[in-house]
Amino acid sequence: MKILLEIRYCGRDFHGWQVQPGSRTVQQTLQTALEALTAQPCGVTGCSRTDSGVHAEQFFCTVQTPVLIRVPLEKLPIAANALLPGDLAVLTAKEVGDDFHPRYAAKGKRYEYRILNRVIPDPFLDGLVFHYPRPLDLAKMREAAEAIVGTHDFSAFCAAASDVQDKVRTIRSLELRREGDLVILAIEGDGFLYNMVRIIAGTLIGVSEGRYSPDEILSILASRDRARAGSTAPACGLYLTRVYY
Amino acid sequence: MKILLEIRYCGRDFHGWQVQPGSRTVQQTLQTALEALTAQPCGVTGCSRTDSGVHAEQFFCTVQTPVLIRVPLEKLPIAANALLPGDLAVLTAKEVGDDFHPRYAAKGKRYEYRILNRVIPDPFLDGLVFHYPRPLDLAKMREAAEAIVGTHDFSAFCAAASDVQDKVRTIRSLELRREGDLVILAIEGDGFLYNMVRIIAGTLIGVSEGRYSPDEILSILASRDRARAGSTAPACGLYLTRVYY
Repeated sequence: MKILLEIRYCGRDFHGWQVQPGSRTVQQTLQTALEALTAQPCGVTGCSRTDSGVHAEQFFCTVQTPVLIRVPLEKLPIAANALLPGDLAVLTAKEVGDDFHPRYAAKGKRYEYRILNRVIPDPFLDGLVFHYPRPLDLAKMREAAEAIVGTHDFSAFCAAASDVQDKVRTIRSLELRREGDLVILAIEGDGFLYNMVRIIAGTLIGVSEGRYSPDEILSILASRDRARAGSTAPACGLYLTRVYY
Repeated sequence: MKILLEIRYCGRDFHGWQVQPGSRTVQQTLQTALEALTAQPCGVTGCSRTDSGVHAEQFFCTVQTPVLIRVPLEKLPIAANALLPGDLAVLTAKEVGDDFHPRYAAKGKRYEYRILNRVIPDPFLDGLVFHYPRPLDLAKMREAAEAIVGTHDFSAFCAAASDVQDKVRTIRSLELRREGDLVILAIEGDGFLYNMVRIIAGTLIGVSEGRYSPDEILSILASRDRARAGSTAPACGLYLTRVYY
């Protein structure tokens, strides 16, 4: 049977989602707990491959078990959480058809990039935000953000290491808001390239710093040249917050 | 000269405030950073001795340095934070008289005890709250809390290990509020005994569970017997939030 799990994790102490020998990853940690629970090998497939240090408020994965598990599905989160470490939790579980794939079935995703924008760091947000001590010019950043919304070839905003061929994606919305000392960049789209949100965040910070003008964004996009966009903002500020099916 | 530092720390990875050989403590970590900064031995004295795992949103300590430090005081937080780990920060610094003692000068303190009160844990609050999955009866807990407010001998609410003689303290306020899935117990008083807030929290949870009736609190207080009160709630839920001078 195939089970769809909604999970949440704090990425601070994980080397990302995907199994890597010798590293503590979300996929491996979850797989180990589910195998202990079902006494069966479990293949876990995720909706995304988050990098080391990236967080997920909502993340979906499927679990394929060769047998019907004995735990009723509504009790599965509690049973799994009893075996999982405190920085990873199963929120919900339901059965899906064998052809459901959590990555290909996703119609869109929402990410947030969170910046602590004040001089003094906050010990309670260590590893949970990007600490940026200088003032940020949100008006300029919003102007630049407008150019990113829409359907574009995002090659300039994709890590060079990516081997994806089609780099056209649609960004439905990109909003910047201030909440106390936090600046939050919320971005929603049909799909995202490798490091795309972090490069967008880094480029918008570059706009605030005057390294790029807001109307330069369109020509950066048109160049399809990764070297033209800004730096990749640190992983600790990035949250996958919603997956749409 | 004597400097008063306002600091903040996430207690999750500290073995409490006080220096203990071989353990990572707040006092030791701060002292090491300040000695690197001033190139002088620095004695650090705290306003309280928080236990392993207890947090401080606001905490004060004094630093005695044999020489005038070269860093201007308004720059000291930035300079110190550059040398401190991410779970400890200096917020402000000012000079005080040589006779100022951060513990004896405190006129009162405010603590919060934070409970995540839902079935599913939150990976982002791991080590930052006490996860209590069963429903809490706030009405009954509030009734019991009323009996704690005022001036009492709190021997029944003090860890047996304490060697303090005078166990009379005044609790100015004790409030319980719900914020989403969090239940927050906020308590303010002139001073607190060893483990006092955690034993009060544990006893109020015991009231919710029906192990004590709200009107039993006065007789527990009158007994001065630690064995009569409830268990000591876990350290991870406790925050020192304000120190009054």
